[in-house]
Amino acid sequence: MTHQRSTTPLLDRVAGPADLRELSDSELGSLADELRAEVIDAVSETGGHLGSGLGVVELSVAIHAVFNTPMDKLIWDVGHQCYPHKILTGRRDRIRTLRQKGGLSGFTKRSESRFDPFGAAHSSTSISAALGFTVGRDMGQATGDAIAVIGDGSISAGMAYEALNNAGAEGRRLFVILNDNEMSIAPPVGAMSSYLSGLYANEPLAKMKSLAEGFEAALPASIRAGAKRARQLASGLSASGTLFEELGFEYVGPINGHDMEQLLPVLRAARVRATGPVLIHCCTVKGKGYAPAETSEDKYHGVSKFNVETGAMAKKGAGAPSYTSVYGKALTEEAAHDPDIVAVTAAMPSGTGVNIMAERFPARVFDVGIAEQHGVTFCAGMAASGLKPFCTIYSTFLQRGFDQVVHDVALQRLPVRFAIDRAGLVGADGATHAGAFDIGYLGNLPGFTVMAASDEAELVHMVSTAAAYDEGPIAFRYPRGAGVGVDLPVRGEVLEIGKGRLVQEGDDVAILSFGAHLSECRVAAELLAEDGLGVTLADARFAKPLDVDLVMQLARNHRALITVEQGAEGGFGSIVLHALARQGAFDKGLVIRNIHLPDRFIDQASPAEMYADAGMAAADIAATVRAAMGVSSKVVSLTLAR
Amino acid sequence: MTHQRSTTPLLDRVAGPADLRELSDSELGSLADELRAEVIDAVSETGGHLGSGLGVVELSVAIHAVFNTPMDKLIWDVGHQCYPHKILTGRRDRIRTLRQKGGLSGFTKRSESRFDPFGAAHSSTSISAALGFTVGRDMGQATGDAIAVIGDGSISAGMAYEALNNAGAEGRRLFVILNDNEMSIAPPVGAMSSYLSGLYANEPLAKMKSLAEGFEAALPASIRAGAKRARQLASGLSASGTLFEELGFEYVGPINGHDMEQLLPVLRAARVRATGPVLIHCCTVKGKGYAPAETSEDKYHGVSKFNVETGAMAKKGAGAPSYTSVYGKALTEEAAHDPDIVAVTAAMPSGTGVNIMAERFPARVFDVGIAEQHGVTFCAGMAASGLKPFCTIYSTFLQRGFDQVVHDVALQRLPVRFAIDRAGLVGADGATHAGAFDIGYLGNLPGFTVMAASDEAELVHMVSTAAAYDEGPIAFRYPRGAGVGVDLPVRGEVLEIGKGRLVQEGDDVAILSFGAHLSECRVAAELLAEDGLGVTLADARFAKPLDVDLVMQLARNHRALITVEQGAEGGFGSIVLHALARQGAFDKGLVIRNIHLPDRFIDQASPAEMYADAGMAAADIAATVRAAMGVSSKVVSLTLAR
Repeated sequence: MTHQRSTTPLLDRVAGPADLRELSDSELGSLADELRAEVIDAVSETGGHLGSGLGVVELSVAIHAVFNTPMDKLIWDVGHQCYPHKILTGRRDRIRTLRQKGGLSGFTKRSESRFDPFGAAHSSTSISAALGFTVGRDMGQATGDAIAVIGDGSISAGMAYEALNNAGAEGRRLFVILNDNEMSIAPPVGAMSSYLSGLYANEPLAKMKSLAEGFEAALPASIRAGAKRARQLASGLSASGTLFEELGFEYVGPINGHDMEQLLPVLRAARVRATGPVLIHCCTVKGKGYAPAETSEDKYHGVSKFNVETGAMAKKGAGAPSYTSVYGKALTEEAAHDPDIVAVTAAMPSGTGVNIMAERFPARVFDVGIAEQHGVTFCAGMAASGLKPFCTIYSTFLQRGFDQVVHDVALQRLPVRFAIDRAGLVGADGATHAGAFDIGYLGNLPGFTVMAASDEAELVHMVSTAAAYDEGPIAFRYPRGAGVGVDLPVRGEVLEIGKGRLVQEGDDVAILSFGAHLSECRVAAELLAEDGLGVTLADARFAKPLDVDLVMQLARNHRALITVEQGAEGGFGSIVLHALARQGAFDKGLVIRNIHLPDRFIDQASPAEMYADAGMAAADIAATVRAAMGVSSKVVSLTLAR
Repeated sequence: MTHQRSTTPLLDRVAGPADLRELSDSELGSLADELRAEVIDAVSETGGHLGSGLGVVELSVAIHAVFNTPMDKLIWDVGHQCYPHKILTGRRDRIRTLRQKGGLSGFTKRSESRFDPFGAAHSSTSISAALGFTVGRDMGQATGDAIAVIGDGSISAGMAYEALNNAGAEGRRLFVILNDNEMSIAPPVGAMSSYLSGLYANEPLAKMKSLAEGFEAALPASIRAGAKRARQLASGLSASGTLFEELGFEYVGPINGHDMEQLLPVLRAARVRATGPVLIHCCTVKGKGYAPAETSEDKYHGVSKFNVETGAMAKKGAGAPSYTSVYGKALTEEAAHDPDIVAVTAAMPSGTGVNIMAERFPARVFDVGIAEQHGVTFCAGMAASGLKPFCTIYSTFLQRGFDQVVHDVALQRLPVRFAIDRAGLVGADGATHAGAFDIGYLGNLPGFTVMAASDEAELVHMVSTAAAYDEGPIAFRYPRGAGVGVDLPVRGEVLEIGKGRLVQEGDDVAILSFGAHLSECRVAAELLAEDGLGVTLADARFAKPLDVDLVMQLARNHRALITVEQGAEGGFGSIVLHALARQGAFDKGLVIRNIHLPDRFIDQASPAEMYADAGMAAADIAATVRAAMGVSSKVVSLTLAR
């Protein structure tokens, strides 16, 4: 059954935001309806972030209609809610290429459009960037107003607070729109979230009550409500002493972010009257206007392709379990054996698999919100008290807690276990989410133990190894997506620290793999075998402490040594090179090559396509081996491994 | 004239906190006076952080008297205010070894005492750690209450906000003492600071006024005031709706943090009655009780040895200017030529030298407070608007903004200039402040340009080079302390990107230095010359892009190549090794050794002593060269370079 696309007569007339400014308020309302239908239809074909975009359809239309983009700089926090914005800003013809190789990014991206003045994908950066543009404007750069749109989850991160604090003190004309849908990815946590709820619900925050009543009265969407807010702003009367006002912002709201009759007058009044920083509090519904999304628990935050009529998502093949779920189960198994094991996530309970442990041990899993800095040091404190914390954060987001990893964990040699999901290239989320740097930024720290899982059974062993290891910090990384399909132990074995393993032996060349690229190395070894080259394949397991005996043995007994890792230069290969230099292994000659991510960011595609783009497919590995050994392939045509 | 030490009869009886619990309240007050005199006397001999410690003398006594340390965990934020605490906790006999080689650390340190349950030196970590201990207590670990003492500067950082947000939501019994002295290192900035001022001054925060009046009335230090606060706590009546209460804390205060008759009853009441998180707001005076400190602009934040009677500090020798001041002047010179140049500091205007530019161009220097995450992205926003921001942050603190460097700067290839002071080992501040990791964590990022200054004239050139470079992010690192005394140009030359320079030429061995260890390499070259070895000495200037031609030329024309850098493994040497491997330079043999910081943290001493400890003194470099070349020294005794 084919879904019939909605007709979009108004949207068809919009080539860019300038066209919105020719429409009446009522036409803008109708346009929003068409835009919503277009977003649903496009994402049903591509998959992607649906709920967030549906929540800001009216906001996207209203901001572009009221402000003078792209001279005015509209900055979407996180950027995953930008699909309506992309449709309105000249990218409608490519919207069905979202998140695909060669297509539109799933986030805002400077190189993609002048309507994306500041790209994002990690949260809570928008106010800082907007303040930067504001200073530029005040210092004579050719830029207009800056508008940051930030969600209630993102504003609870420390970085957003730092920015509010600084922007409030600077006092410059700046617009922050709080898109409050009472959930970030998971239902929100933290006191700030409760506070925001209190601004418009019947919470025992007595002083906010008049405001809350005002909002409730406004919900039937009369134009008077919007006008009242606009009058409040214009007259400089603050509604009440909110936290934002205490930080120096003028506070307007809450208003209904789906009601154009509230949005347009408030934005217009703010634009005309504001002299300093203004926070406009909009309440929205994630997944708004698409029943399957509104009623789903996660509001269709991230979806695969789906049927528009039914909301049914395309099923994934019944293949190997994901690394994430294997981690969650292995962690739960260890937790069942040791009551001191606890887990921490930063607003990603299901994304990281700790929700599996939380089902069985809810009091031992902590969701700290989007707060990686705090999350890491909270783990350090728990470790200092004698607990065994598993700090479960994606590679790319652990960058947010890097100083805490150095200063609070490594320097004090506290046994915090870092479970690093999404290591390496991650596919549709693209370069911003790549876990490219963790091997280097952890491997360079004294006393750190750094492991990588070459398959999902190895991951189970590494969870057990980390649980058992109590002498200092230990990390293990594993990729996004499904495992390779090996049998899984019920409980892992405790690995010997600093020891790798031989996978296969051959006479000519040694490939030393660290992590999940081992499967690609196996294919490379087969390709090389077709050329008559005997390949030793080893799984390093540990980047630190490095198995120097294994490395030296591989170096001595082969004509070439190749290191392979799913990470940037400066990680595993660097540790191997340094160890070899220290041993004097280069003095009399050693053919060594290092395969790692190239010195550029890799755009979104499937992970296999991204690794091929990076020159890391099996055929590339085989070619590197041949070039290093000075032999050419006897096999005429090479096929890509995947 | 010798200063006569005060007599300290009460303090002499205190071997540890348990002894405080035997004293009467009035004896505790007298003890605090003796403790203050002891701190002043000790720091006059050692130098160090004076003002902060003097501000918490009474607080240190009161907390240890009321709480059951070390079972209860007292966590000092930043840790530089811990000298009175160290004196009270069994370290009085070593207090005059503070910050010296083999002596007490200038910060709290787990390995030093069981009364230091969580070390610190970077700011804003204490609440997170305290929450960790609290969870440990609630889960049955052998630990009591947790008490975090945090300053008004530190609490304005995003990390502290994340922790308050999480602790407020967790609702566990936890004590946060806000030590509010209205300044962190420099006078505070940001809206939060104004907010705190409003809590006890005649600011136009009408709803706080009764509180402010209450505090003013309490200032004569009557016991009634303390009792009133205690009653408020006990009865569960919050004083007013403060920001802290909105985040879920019970708020008590403000109280006079120098008045034992307020401190003791409030702490006792809090300890007896609290069921959830409590914030006790103490107002203190930095430098309290020592007139020269109280009247000084920076309240003797960090001092050299001084005369107790007069407050006169030991003068530094009239040697070469500091790298910091050279940077500040060079930046100002560039700013005079280009109105688009702006500078950002995170609460360190004088520490980073941007105060020099602020004197001439005050509107173009931004102090964002202790907010490195925001600071980096604020710079990215300014760069996107067309400005030329110099983001001036110490190496160790830039770790706080690492994700922002990756995600907001590098990924978008925005031309933010990173001026990285305190690169390498820093002396008395010890391991926590070492700038050990920046070469690696920046050098691994695609599109980044990374320079290091080998002397202060080179630093001037690099400031000019960074100002002129507009194609992407660029960083330059330079060490703490005085330059080497070379002539300084009025304005720097723009260096060719990716080109190093030869310093001297010789036939036998090549030393390739990156950064300020060049001076040590010169001495090593002299030592080697005494052995008849001809040394080529090169200054790489750039770690990225690497001068591969220079590296290959050095490798081909010498019997050995040695890289030297003031940083951890995984930085410059790693980039050189990777480039050589890529070129096949190891295939037929190459004697290469890499000199960098060892894989351990180096305790405080003078920088020269620390580098000797690290095995990086000139004699060590020479020894490495000889060992690599298989020659032994003809010179009988080697002397250390410095």
